[in-house]
Amino acid sequence: MSPKITGELLRQLRQAMKNCKYFSEPIQAYIIPSGDAHQSEYIAPCDCRREFISGFDGSAGTAIVTEQHAAMWTDGRYFLQANQQMDNNWTLMKMGLKETPSQEDWLISVLPENSKVGVDPWIIAADQWKNMFKALSSAGHSLVAVQDNLIDAVWPDRPERPSTQLRSLGLDFTGISWQDKITTLRAKMSERKITWFVATALDEIAWLFNLRGADIEYNPVFFAYTIVGMNTIRFFVDLKRLSDPAMREHLQLDSPSKPELSIQTFPYESVYTELQAICAALGPKDKVWICDKASCALTQVIPKTHRSPIPYTPLCLGKAVKNATEIQGMKMAHIKDAVALCELFAWLEKEIPNGNVTEISAADKAEELRSQQKDFVGLSFPTISSVGPHGAIIHYRPLPETNRTLTVNEVYLIDSGAQYVDGTTDVTRTMHFGTPSAFEKECFTYVLKGHIAVSAAIFPNGTKGHLLDSFARSALWESGLDYLHGTGHGVGCFLNVHEGPCGISYKTFADEPLEAGMIVSDEPGYYEDGSFGIRLENVVLVVPAKPKYNYRNRGSLTFEPLTLVPIQVKMMNTELLTQKERDWVNEYHRKCREVVGAELERQGRQEALEWLIRETQLII
Amino acid sequence: MSPKITGELLRQLRQAMKNCKYFSEPIQAYIIPSGDAHQSEYIAPCDCRREFISGFDGSAGTAIVTEQHAAMWTDGRYFLQANQQMDNNWTLMKMGLKETPSQEDWLISVLPENSKVGVDPWIIAADQWKNMFKALSSAGHSLVAVQDNLIDAVWPDRPERPSTQLRSLGLDFTGISWQDKITTLRAKMSERKITWFVATALDEIAWLFNLRGADIEYNPVFFAYTIVGMNTIRFFVDLKRLSDPAMREHLQLDSPSKPELSIQTFPYESVYTELQAICAALGPKDKVWICDKASCALTQVIPKTHRSPIPYTPLCLGKAVKNATEIQGMKMAHIKDAVALCELFAWLEKEIPNGNVTEISAADKAEELRSQQKDFVGLSFPTISSVGPHGAIIHYRPLPETNRTLTVNEVYLIDSGAQYVDGTTDVTRTMHFGTPSAFEKECFTYVLKGHIAVSAAIFPNGTKGHLLDSFARSALWESGLDYLHGTGHGVGCFLNVHEGPCGISYKTFADEPLEAGMIVSDEPGYYEDGSFGIRLENVVLVVPAKPKYNYRNRGSLTFEPLTLVPIQVKMMNTELLTQKERDWVNEYHRKCREVVGAELERQGRQEALEWLIRETQLII
Repeated sequence: MSPKITGELLRQLRQAMKNCKYFSEPIQAYIIPSGDAHQSEYIAPCDCRREFISGFDGSAGTAIVTEQHAAMWTDGRYFLQANQQMDNNWTLMKMGLKETPSQEDWLISVLPENSKVGVDPWIIAADQWKNMFKALSSAGHSLVAVQDNLIDAVWPDRPERPSTQLRSLGLDFTGISWQDKITTLRAKMSERKITWFVATALDEIAWLFNLRGADIEYNPVFFAYTIVGMNTIRFFVDLKRLSDPAMREHLQLDSPSKPELSIQTFPYESVYTELQAICAALGPKDKVWICDKASCALTQVIPKTHRSPIPYTPLCLGKAVKNATEIQGMKMAHIKDAVALCELFAWLEKEIPNGNVTEISAADKAEELRSQQKDFVGLSFPTISSVGPHGAIIHYRPLPETNRTLTVNEVYLIDSGAQYVDGTTDVTRTMHFGTPSAFEKECFTYVLKGHIAVSAAIFPNGTKGHLLDSFARSALWESGLDYLHGTGHGVGCFLNVHEGPCGISYKTFADEPLEAGMIVSDEPGYYEDGSFGIRLENVVLVVPAKPKYNYRNRGSLTFEPLTLVPIQVKMMNTELLTQKERDWVNEYHRKCREVVGAELERQGRQEALEWLIRETQLII
Repeated sequence: MSPKITGELLRQLRQAMKNCKYFSEPIQAYIIPSGDAHQSEYIAPCDCRREFISGFDGSAGTAIVTEQHAAMWTDGRYFLQANQQMDNNWTLMKMGLKETPSQEDWLISVLPENSKVGVDPWIIAADQWKNMFKALSSAGHSLVAVQDNLIDAVWPDRPERPSTQLRSLGLDFTGISWQDKITTLRAKMSERKITWFVATALDEIAWLFNLRGADIEYNPVFFAYTIVGMNTIRFFVDLKRLSDPAMREHLQLDSPSKPELSIQTFPYESVYTELQAICAALGPKDKVWICDKASCALTQVIPKTHRSPIPYTPLCLGKAVKNATEIQGMKMAHIKDAVALCELFAWLEKEIPNGNVTEISAADKAEELRSQQKDFVGLSFPTISSVGPHGAIIHYRPLPETNRTLTVNEVYLIDSGAQYVDGTTDVTRTMHFGTPSAFEKECFTYVLKGHIAVSAAIFPNGTKGHLLDSFARSALWESGLDYLHGTGHGVGCFLNVHEGPCGISYKTFADEPLEAGMIVSDEPGYYEDGSFGIRLENVVLVVPAKPKYNYRNRGSLTFEPLTLVPIQVKMMNTELLTQKERDWVNEYHRKCREVVGAELERQGRQEALEWLIRETQLII
């Protein structure tokens, strides 16, 4: 991987920063956040501005360019990758390390007095704007909204915004009609005396209307906004997408069942002026809900006295708790996904000794096998297929120039997942096709102990996921080891593979309590730089638990694994496992064999079935 | 315990709320926070305003009185106690429960439009003022500073503010001179370009000057403020206290070694006007450090552009990391404390069957035995001596009208501690002097497992204590049990028994990372309302750990128990313990026997020594 040469680009950007065509005065620094106008984590090519200017294409990162410096903040998953993708013009700011300054502190330390710091108000979230604004102001600088995006100004061949075909989902996939979702939303609005709700997150809008798109790779969403009032629904989207009769029928565009369920459609771009018009007509007591992570541009349209910012919208919370239909779909999707992976691993076991399998061909094979499964739509994120030292690059993605061959001498880590119409998957397995070293086994076993500690944890109703994070680390910590990422994220149902408002991470405090029906990943790891990486990831469903007692009638919860792919016994040092942990592994493997075995048999995939049976032998 | 009758008092308070003598317009609600002008947790009798108006005397709680309602917010430790101490005029707001509204939300729900909510600006912390101000403003109400305290206005016989004799501590107890502490503070100020520092927390001022007082029961502090500039030190205190020649010598009041270490003394009350004078003379770049938990009144004297609020002051952070002399003192104090407790328990074992020991007499005996130890000053908090159902009242304090007799049929919980000149102790043991039930043993054992899980945890340098809280709960959670308080708090060295900025609690996110030299308590519990309470508390020292590996050279930490009092084996269901847990108990008891046994022998306390030997037999 050779870094992107950015000298000339940065020169042009710095010229634009001084050009009063874009802002009345020159600006001394320009912030380029990751993300788009919807604060999406994964973004369309037209929105990959931070990658364009720096070369760094990880899913999280913020660039800041001043007259003298260019700096990139990203987290532990991407330290190695960012270092490899960026040239010497860039300084990597390793988030999470004690010595790394915050963006604010760094800006204050490098800027001349009374500096202006520019940012595109559509790309920066309102809460980030607020914090940055405050910090800069208190140090005598100012944060200014530059309406024209300065990266676009130096990006001649920037791609078009995508407008893919929409797909409507019936009740057999969603469990709840969009009309019922609107009614529930309005009930919550009226409970909190809210008159308007502005939805800006793409997955929330897709979930609300039971629609899916393909505007962003891996994320079945589409560019849109929605404003819901107590009697009106405004839907902002490229109108060409609504011409299909079936789509018009799904949305009841031509014959709404009730007037308050009639959807008014508007072009995507008109959300700003339409929201302005709504706000101009607000009564003195009218309140508008908008997520505090929505764009600064749209948030500031709403007068402060009418604005009611919330950390998580009712759509976000509603979407997180899966209904019975969605849970059933997620289970089906994970069985199909396990079938594909069992086939992959059986194939790898056979092929690797021949020396013909590479990181890329293994990833391609995984995709090919998944695509044979019913209702396959695409991958849910770029497959991380990594051998040996590449495994330590936490979000590694094999490229032709980095592609390594799988051998019987190195650890192989594959983190992959798919979108099926009935659900989204995300699974990581770490395997050795020869004889792992004692140290590799030891680390794998600590990671497994952490994975089990979370998966088998019983905890009271109302517990926030971040309180479980240390369980995943305890065994590693005891040996002086750790990993620099969170332990789990929410997973959508045929939606984004990362979603809020729950997760399992020491980095957050504002996550919502776990509830039965929520779905998160459980993925501790260990990364030995330059040598190997280990991660073990299942997607797990929050389910009620029934322990012996029930303190204050609070009830208890635990997790049920949805992912049903064997965990390689060869990588375990079973002596380090407690009896309880061995029982967990055996019970998990029993379920894999029973559930996935039946499906492999039904699909007539004999070799994979044999592999599954071999890999799910009892451990003692 | 019969509740305080508050009808007439509330009537008078509501009259004062309408009286324009106190504020230009009537106020519709009045907030009575716990605490004094220094935001102390434990307070002097003259500052017990919340207790005076409500009857509830727990260490934490906020009262709000409106024209119609009187409500009290407190946490899980105090639910039972508050219910018993307050009459029907009061509504208990159980903090930490999902259905309990915040103070802001509750006010907004009960107040008529455009209400005024009053509070004494000296008693409310600046950060609380800010949050409350914001929440009320956004709902159309206003928060107003009422300079005269309205409780004082209806409290005819309010006690005087205490002014006890000061005690100076030499280097043999403090390890660092106050002059060196000032120099270190100024180095931190100049590093952050701060020109002034305002100290308002009483324990920080006591620590800084190596002085102790007795103004607040159990807390060896004295009423004072300090303002430190780069060349000046202003000390605000009742000047009568500085007349003693030894005190003048300690503070070098008459012959300072260097001009910048010369202390200017001022009356306690003049801090406001003196800070005003300092602020009037500030240069454009001058910055003033003040804790964001300092009083709103004093904080607002500093113009916003010059104010640099910090969550924890350098004194708070410096005080938290104990130096070698302080650690040695804390160890000595805990050995002496263990001697007293071994004697107490040996005595209880002998006396309880006679039926003459009550909660109060047991607590008195504990105090008597402690007072026989060298450099004993007093208790560090009111002894919680509780039998059977009283044990479930987490901060129970026996009173003549509640006093129960200790028997061989009920669980006995004693949470007690002392101030010695060399250190502060805080220890809880739960015992049964007959035959505990299987359920009592089961619960005790889960609590013990939690205690050990924290105490034996190994974790990376830089870990915040709140990330360890779930370790203490895991065994309880697994059986559907829990406890509604945090797991640990910082402990001062001959200072407050509760101190920041570290602790072990799921409720915080803003604690500072644990560092070697910090001292915290480890005290999980289980409370069966109406039946019994269990808590196991040791004070533990953060020490470096040396696990097998050292990931990224971060280093690891663990805890060393300073408390060395046997944990009753009779209460354990040893079958529920793992081998590792049994090893921990045996090693802990070995150390108790070795260290405390030697001291018991030295002091010739034979019966206690025999008890210690019996209680520290190996478990298998």
